[in-house]
Amino acid sequence: MATDRENAVFEAAIKLGALYHQFVGTPISRSTAEKVEAAIESAVSLQPYVTHIEVRLDRTLMNENPFGYSELTGAMYDAVIETKFGNAVCRAQLKFENGYPMMKILD
Amino acid sequence: MATDRENAVFEAAIKLGALYHQFVGTPISRSTAEKVEAAIESAVSLQPYVTHIEVRLDRTLMNENPFGYSELTGAMYDAVIETKFGNAVCRAQLKFENGYPMMKILD
Amino acid sequence: MATDRENAVFEAAIKLGALYHQFVGTPISRSTAEKVEAAIESAVSLQPYVTHIEVRLDRTLMNENPFGYSELTGAMYDAVIETKFGNAVCRAQLKFENGYPMMKILD
Amino acid sequence: MATDRENAVFEAAIKLGALYHQFVGTPISRSTAEKVEAAIESAVSLQPYVTHIEVRLDRTLMNENPFGYSELTGAMYDAVIETKFGNAVCRAQLKFENGYPMMKILD
Repeated sequence: MATDRENAVFEAAIKLGALYHQFVGTPISRSTAEKVEAAIESAVSLQPYVTHIEVRLDRTLMNENPFGYSELTGAMYDAVIETKFGNAVCRAQLKFENGYPMMKILD
Repeated sequence: MATDRENAVFEAAIKLGALYHQFVGTPISRSTAEKVEAAIESAVSLQPYVTHIEVRLDRTLMNENPFGYSELTGAMYDAVIETKFGNAVCRAQLKFENGYPMMKILD
Repeated sequence: MATDRENAVFEAAIKLGALYHQFVGTPISRSTAEKVEAAIESAVSLQPYVTHIEVRLDRTLMNENPFGYSELTGAMYDAVIETKFGNAVCRAQLKFENGYPMMKILD
Repeated sequence: MATDRENAVFEAAIKLGALYHQFVGTPISRSTAEKVEAAIESAVSLQPYVTHIEVRLDRTLMNENPFGYSELTGAMYDAVIETKFGNAVCRAQLKFENGYPMMKILD
């Protein structure tokens, strides 16, 4: 059977995988980024075992296409999540590194 | 060649198809619905030829799963969009009717 | 009231907006691209008023990330759709042009 | 620092969260379900640390809307994934239980 720690890790990772694939492709710009961040955080905060979620989208990558906006890509994400399962806690991160939207356990 | 009216219709429909499939599946509840509506509206308003977008998600369908929240489904959507292309305008709607997320040209 | 031609245009555009936002972000590689194309085509072909759909994803853009695969992006798409509404037909395309996933009415 | 077992669990969960939110909303029917399953499996199999993935979508829930098809929902999913990280392995499942698309560690 899985330990509390394993379950906390499992739950954190589900949310990172989910938020990435739910929102990639969303039209976005520097002026609307805050609303998209708020929606993502509000969505993740509803999910089970989440105690904290912080999503920051990199405005410097929101370069304008010919119609003046961008699309949310994996490169823009910096998200930190905390989950609690029983007595165990997990903190994990989604952040672009070396051309890849890396997800990892922080502690 | 397409007329301005056809292009206005075309542009309105793209956005309805897009917003539907981008956001279906998002975790949502009555207390977070407003943030999701704001994010959808901000995303659509960036797209070309959009002059107005209004998204209303039906709270009465946000019934709680065992973990206390819902998922955005097609049945919840009521969206009205207006586009302008050249001198032509199109107003169109996405709304659940007879078990189907119907999209149609209003005028 | 909308004409058959306007409705054919409307229905074609819905599907292009939908397929774009449904599948962007899907992990993909040159060896799996065919299966993703087949799934997209099968999904679109179910939707109302569609008489033909062809989706081609540009393998030359499927460059490997550090883990050896890619993600479906707007730049990869070349899709042509035909819809029929009443006596009217519309053929439309999604194709990357000048840094933008351009959708347009072909005829 | 995270153990191999924790990382194997983490990687399995990322993929379950991802496949769920990437594909929910896809138009589907009993006759196209196999192609969608193949596309999902091919997508997940590309992702890091995945040694096995099997996705089965419940045809009995693919009831026809007025236009003769369905949409992929969480209730249809039965997915089992295996990941390997270092010397550790994780097997996990996504399956609808009690009105919820439950994800859990199998062993």
